[in-house]
Amino acid sequence: MLTLYGFDVSNYFNMIKLALAVKGVDYKTVTLYPNQSAEYLSKSPMGKVPALETEQGVLTETNVILEYLDDTYPDNPLYPGNTFEKAKIRELVKMTELYLELPARRCHPEVFFGQQVDELTKKEAKRALCKGIEGLARCAQFSPYLAGEQLTAADIVFLYSADLASVVADKLFGLDLLNMAPGAKQLMASLNQREDVMKIAEDRKLGNIKFKKYIASVT
Amino acid sequence: MLTLYGFDVSNYFNMIKLALAVKGVDYKTVTLYPNQSAEYLSKSPMGKVPALETEQGVLTETNVILEYLDDTYPDNPLYPGNTFEKAKIRELVKMTELYLELPARRCHPEVFFGQQVDELTKKEAKRALCKGIEGLARCAQFSPYLAGEQLTAADIVFLYSADLASVVADKLFGLDLLNMAPGAKQLMASLNQREDVMKIAEDRKLGNIKFKKYIASVT
Repeated sequence: MLTLYGFDVSNYFNMIKLALAVKGVDYKTVTLYPNQSAEYLSKSPMGKVPALETEQGVLTETNVILEYLDDTYPDNPLYPGNTFEKAKIRELVKMTELYLELPARRCHPEVFFGQQVDELTKKEAKRALCKGIEGLARCAQFSPYLAGEQLTAADIVFLYSADLASVVADKLFGLDLLNMAPGAKQLMASLNQREDVMKIAEDRKLGNIKFKKYIASVT
Repeated sequence: MLTLYGFDVSNYFNMIKLALAVKGVDYKTVTLYPNQSAEYLSKSPMGKVPALETEQGVLTETNVILEYLDDTYPDNPLYPGNTFEKAKIRELVKMTELYLELPARRCHPEVFFGQQVDELTKKEAKRALCKGIEGLARCAQFSPYLAGEQLTAADIVFLYSADLASVVADKLFGLDLLNMAPGAKQLMASLNQREDVMKIAEDRKLGNIKFKKYIASVT
């Protein structure tokens, strides 16, 4: 059986949980925070989560795991369509990660952990987030899903990246990020009403209590 | 016929050129620098290069284009093997981009364009590059290629990312980055001896003269 390493507060971890739920694939989880122990580094080369242990070995990097799951369990495809359509889904996944997730993530210490982020980083992040959502608006269909009529990997990544990015944009810059991509708010609202998504949100709430204790114990 | 937009000094552009050469696929190029014109944004949603125009539309993001080419032209596969082996190649591609290319890129203005990069950025980049090469060393085989005995997409990305990253590491931090991953130097040297790689290097030299004129004209 597949083993998923990570913790319920990690948005990347939750992308994999949702993908597994959509596909109806059984798995077990091992709760684990990113760390640099020799044991974990032998599984996850950067010490990051999520990591997925398969019968053939361990995989890391969320989009890599998503594509592996889709190749291995073809039901309910996350990258449906012909080779060009698949590529457009990969493009949406990549854009969401590079241009929303990564710039927002640089501001997480201030927004989510009460630390201070320097002004230059915030200035760069604000600019990057605005460019990112504009780029995504050019590329995504939001009709109602990012790639059209069907839920794909792009929506799973969007759900868990764009929500954190929009909290960052709101709290630090007073920007309504989702409002800058017509259709994005409606999609986010409808995804959040899915039963599988609500279950993951419930897990996150419980996981957050443990996570806060963990953070307090290491800082 | 495929049309590739970009310029010969762009390392991402050269990844696609090498992939097309390895596969023996015909294409034409349109020399173009990243820009935010409405016309180009309608092709490339972030205004970046490379972009590949196919009969079905335009694709951006290098790994997306590499996977599309592999799906469309199966000869000389860039992601050979079973689903797990393919995933490991994608993981190496992703790690090289996230943990070598992106941190090094933040220092390009100082290393390649005579501008100044602030100390905090450099400190972050140094730490990230060291962690990145250590992570890659844990995951890559270098026997002789990153994923084993066969040239894959991972080597193409490594060739054009790790070389720039090692220039950054050397010039700014006095670090011999490739030396930190046993086998990396030998691989880089042998890749650079390939005929297709030497042809691309020749194009880059010529392209650099035009690119410098372009940079001077816009700064």
